[in-house]
Amino acid sequence: MELKDYLHDRSALVDQALERWLPGEEVLPFSLHQSMRYSIFAGGKRLRPILMIAASEAVGGSAQQVLHAACAMEMIHTYSLIHDDLPAMDDDDFRRGRPTNHKTYGEATAILAGDALLTEAFRLLADAEANRLIEPAKVLKVIELVARYAGSQGMVGGQVVDMESEGKEIDFPTLEYIHTHKTGGLILASTQVGALLGGGDEEQIAALIRFGGAAGLAFQIADDILDIVGDQTELGKDVGSDQARGKITYPGLLGLAEARQRANELCDIAVESLTPLGAAAEPLQVLARYIVDRKS
Amino acid sequence: MELKDYLHDRSALVDQALERWLPGEEVLPFSLHQSMRYSIFAGGKRLRPILMIAASEAVGGSAQQVLHAACAMEMIHTYSLIHDDLPAMDDDDFRRGRPTNHKTYGEATAILAGDALLTEAFRLLADAEANRLIEPAKVLKVIELVARYAGSQGMVGGQVVDMESEGKEIDFPTLEYIHTHKTGGLILASTQVGALLGGGDEEQIAALIRFGGAAGLAFQIADDILDIVGDQTELGKDVGSDQARGKITYPGLLGLAEARQRANELCDIAVESLTPLGAAAEPLQVLARYIVDRKS
Repeated sequence: MELKDYLHDRSALVDQALERWLPGEEVLPFSLHQSMRYSIFAGGKRLRPILMIAASEAVGGSAQQVLHAACAMEMIHTYSLIHDDLPAMDDDDFRRGRPTNHKTYGEATAILAGDALLTEAFRLLADAEANRLIEPAKVLKVIELVARYAGSQGMVGGQVVDMESEGKEIDFPTLEYIHTHKTGGLILASTQVGALLGGGDEEQIAALIRFGGAAGLAFQIADDILDIVGDQTELGKDVGSDQARGKITYPGLLGLAEARQRANELCDIAVESLTPLGAAAEPLQVLARYIVDRKS
Repeated sequence: MELKDYLHDRSALVDQALERWLPGEEVLPFSLHQSMRYSIFAGGKRLRPILMIAASEAVGGSAQQVLHAACAMEMIHTYSLIHDDLPAMDDDDFRRGRPTNHKTYGEATAILAGDALLTEAFRLLADAEANRLIEPAKVLKVIELVARYAGSQGMVGGQVVDMESEGKEIDFPTLEYIHTHKTGGLILASTQVGALLGGGDEEQIAALIRFGGAAGLAFQIADDILDIVGDQTELGKDVGSDQARGKITYPGLLGLAEARQRANELCDIAVESLTPLGAAAEPLQVLARYIVDRKS
């Protein structure tokens, strides 16, 4: 499998679907829909949606079956970036090489664009037409599960602890809490929901939960490493920002070599957990390696 | 029916349910759950949950059947107040006689508490245990409907247009757009969802959609009037704030007398729409009158 082609094809699919499902810039209020689209179409890697599609395909499902949920996941991810970048939070001026949402549309619209993306994500998860071939009880399970991973004891909770830890000495369990909640949860949710909506059986779902947990944590460690050794141009954001902000990171706590080793170990765990899925899980294997080896 | 007792009993029921469903202050992250609870238990009237319960009872359903959805509606309402009060939006220091959320917990936590309340609302709407007696397909319909009323073409959209209209000359259709979207939508959603989850038939649901539409708009006109003639102590917030902010309101555009007349007409429309529901809708009749006659 050629990773570049796989990422290109799947992200094109996701982009087309987002284009279809997000209200257009000609829909009132114009400024709000422009602001939502500005951040959704900012050149993100679409990693979460692609993982969800790959998980569905790994259990014998299709991309079509999970495309709406994959888009919902990208909307939740994007809302969290818009709110994280706000002056009251990380106060970032650039993301992916472009001015952040609030720099372009103002703080008020940025806050509301985030709120609207989060709300639209749940509308899409419940969308009757998109879910027409899926048992309603299963759809409800997916919605509850996504809300848990995204909410006060999930992603939002991780962001709070991250924020409160800035400039403080934190221990390893606190660092793992932040990473598994703030970033890992949505990645895990993506593979779990992909397995569920793709029609996976219990063993397959369990395998993809293990995969998503390990891959999610590996992703964040790789992110921390890139913040130290990454190329500013490729990343589209400042390097060294964690340190400047007094953020404790994996390499900061364990050293660069040990952080790299930990990321590779987690990648191995992720790949091993795919064994019961056989050849259909090959894209996920390649994606796990990409998560730790990527340059941006 | 004694309105005072009805409001007291139903709001006690809602408070108990919110207490049960919102993570406690001893759940990590403490500050986030404290901040969410600070605004949820700030002495709100619980109007939207009470309307939902009354709508369920009007179609032969129970309070229990809709209690989780009623709490979800209050969470969405509360998140919108927290975000509206932020410095980048209305920049309000007080609400219901207490410092606003960001004045107490800081802006970052206030933004995240709003995000978490919105997310938790959808989790609760999908909650398997709470919905155990309701057909899953109907629950999905409710989730999609609530997301529409709350999202970019609903409440959030209304807030954007409201914000962009400050200090400008706006026409009557724009004012009605703001009112029906920013406030009216959630009130309409409350009666519509109450009718759906309460097991109403098509005619009953249609009647409660008409009721909610008229009552929602009447509520906002009454709010605008209270901002001019209300008692600061009873309201728990500054009077005259709309004018100070250059907001166009119903009484500002039509005069106080005509605004009052319009509110009363809408109240009559709301009450008339209850005819097919008979005596079971008596509480909704009394609530419609309360919406336009209230002092806070």
